[in-house]
Amino acid sequence: MGKKDLYLGIDTGGTGVKYVVTDRDGSVMTSGEVPTDPASIIESMQRLASAVEGALGGEPDFPNLAGLGLACAGIVNSATGHLGRSPNLPGWQDRDLAGDIGTVFRDIPVVLANDVNGALYGEFRQGAGRGCRNLVMIALGTGVGGGVIIDGRLVVGSHFGAGEIGHMNLELDGPPCTCGGRGCLEAWAGSMGLLRRAREAAGQGAANDDLAQLVARRGESLNTMDLAGLAARGDAVTVGIFAEAGRRLGQAIGNIVNLLDPDRVIIGGGVAQAGDLILKPCRETVPGLVLAEKAKNVPVVAADLGPLAAAVGAACLAREMEISS
Amino acid sequence: MGKKDLYLGIDTGGTGVKYVVTDRDGSVMTSGEVPTDPASIIESMQRLASAVEGALGGEPDFPNLAGLGLACAGIVNSATGHLGRSPNLPGWQDRDLAGDIGTVFRDIPVVLANDVNGALYGEFRQGAGRGCRNLVMIALGTGVGGGVIIDGRLVVGSHFGAGEIGHMNLELDGPPCTCGGRGCLEAWAGSMGLLRRAREAAGQGAANDDLAQLVARRGESLNTMDLAGLAARGDAVTVGIFAEAGRRLGQAIGNIVNLLDPDRVIIGGGVAQAGDLILKPCRETVPGLVLAEKAKNVPVVAADLGPLAAAVGAACLAREMEISS
Repeated sequence: MGKKDLYLGIDTGGTGVKYVVTDRDGSVMTSGEVPTDPASIIESMQRLASAVEGALGGEPDFPNLAGLGLACAGIVNSATGHLGRSPNLPGWQDRDLAGDIGTVFRDIPVVLANDVNGALYGEFRQGAGRGCRNLVMIALGTGVGGGVIIDGRLVVGSHFGAGEIGHMNLELDGPPCTCGGRGCLEAWAGSMGLLRRAREAAGQGAANDDLAQLVARRGESLNTMDLAGLAARGDAVTVGIFAEAGRRLGQAIGNIVNLLDPDRVIIGGGVAQAGDLILKPCRETVPGLVLAEKAKNVPVVAADLGPLAAAVGAACLAREMEISS
Repeated sequence: MGKKDLYLGIDTGGTGVKYVVTDRDGSVMTSGEVPTDPASIIESMQRLASAVEGALGGEPDFPNLAGLGLACAGIVNSATGHLGRSPNLPGWQDRDLAGDIGTVFRDIPVVLANDVNGALYGEFRQGAGRGCRNLVMIALGTGVGGGVIIDGRLVVGSHFGAGEIGHMNLELDGPPCTCGGRGCLEAWAGSMGLLRRAREAAGQGAANDDLAQLVARRGESLNTMDLAGLAARGDAVTVGIFAEAGRRLGQAIGNIVNLLDPDRVIIGGGVAQAGDLILKPCRETVPGLVLAEKAKNVPVVAADLGPLAAAVGAACLAREMEISS
């Protein structure tokens, strides 16, 4: 029997289940990924258990694991272990997720978090948010997610509905959002919003301009890295689309800073790879919108941990089991 | 010597210092007010001490007082007892406020909070927020202030700059705000914003309509209760001004609920006395802007404690000394 001093952090996506095993300090000892079975949590966990067992030396029943954390998109009730609505994993939703995990990983304490909170907690303990007490993360992906830490604890809200920063309304009559509303941050700064705006601009411009050609060539495969590439080559319209996304991101951050005055704001997600195209106009917008003098220059920084952030955060949560619930 | 089982709660305004003395349950035993000396904290505290000593039966040195809480407009550092910028009390600002209080109220533990946080904490313990764990208050006065409680603790932020809900930006190119920006909540829902919009509407309408006559008659004395009276008599333009304030308040609340998912939102301050003129359009706006199903119907309620809220909250903070700092 080994000493119980390792933590398993899991990040379940629609296609893959990523995992890390960390020591007590949160350092990653090993990591990997197995395919998600979208119809079955238990099957997915059995695949994961085989992989982890192999990685840990093959002893059955994980004698070294002191705890397990799982991050998952959707409404995660971290108090009961129940997974509510989960858009990426409809076959998993409305289930006793912690219970299902426990049938595979027996007698190992389980903690759950939603995926963005997992990534935020990873950054908080091991990445771009180390040393902070009050921290906000905004994840710019297809949609825009977010998370909040106050006094070192994740804020999950009274109905596990907190952190929906993507649907902060920045203009009642703004552009349409996937949620059915208008003027949400996501409509400007999520990749779906950016691509929609690029296609609109391409339709309005001359047929032979660079953006119109890119949009025609890439068709349904068009992504934000295509746009970032064009912007990096100086295309003014595309630069403007990123700048407006950055300005709206800055407006949202200004609002959050006025409300919560955090130590730092972390920007993650695929769209954040556009870097200064978004972050520079964002950082230029924030100070003018913040009232308290000392809060104006809140650092807005890029995430540090990459795609393993949520798994690392889940492992840290397992270590600490101090999620606000 | 009496038993140390009473708490003194103080709310310092530009003209008066209100106080309450509560028992351990937070019930108000006695209350009163003395004039503020805007140039001197110590003089103001001496006036207060005389009044409180009289109210408590005249024993010197307050043998019954177990603690003292003081709420004050401005940037209040609840960790060090320092008062920073304080617009209503410029003669008090940049002072060791807790130290000054201690020269008058000797050997009594002191806790500080800003005024809206004091009122929020009062409502949380003794008023419209009882039983909540996560709570937000928005105070609609000349300006618009706010406060946040997460997991039963006041959120003061990393630089004591949290709670500036009045400067949530709801439209980058919106109407001008007193802060120098545009499109802040305060520009629609603070009394200065409401009066400005009423005067503008009066200038644009026919000279003999009801609003134009009211604005001409009341001149510089025009206040939001005048406007609420006219709206209650059915004046459509004035009703519309309150409705727009309510809609913008609802937009701000929707944003806060998406971010924090509180149990309840409390609306206080003088403008809130316009009641359903503002609260009805506000309540109609919120659910459509909130993403999480269970968070949509967050109760938006009027404050309960009236003008003593901040003093009561300060007394409760003195009892609990658990302010997040």
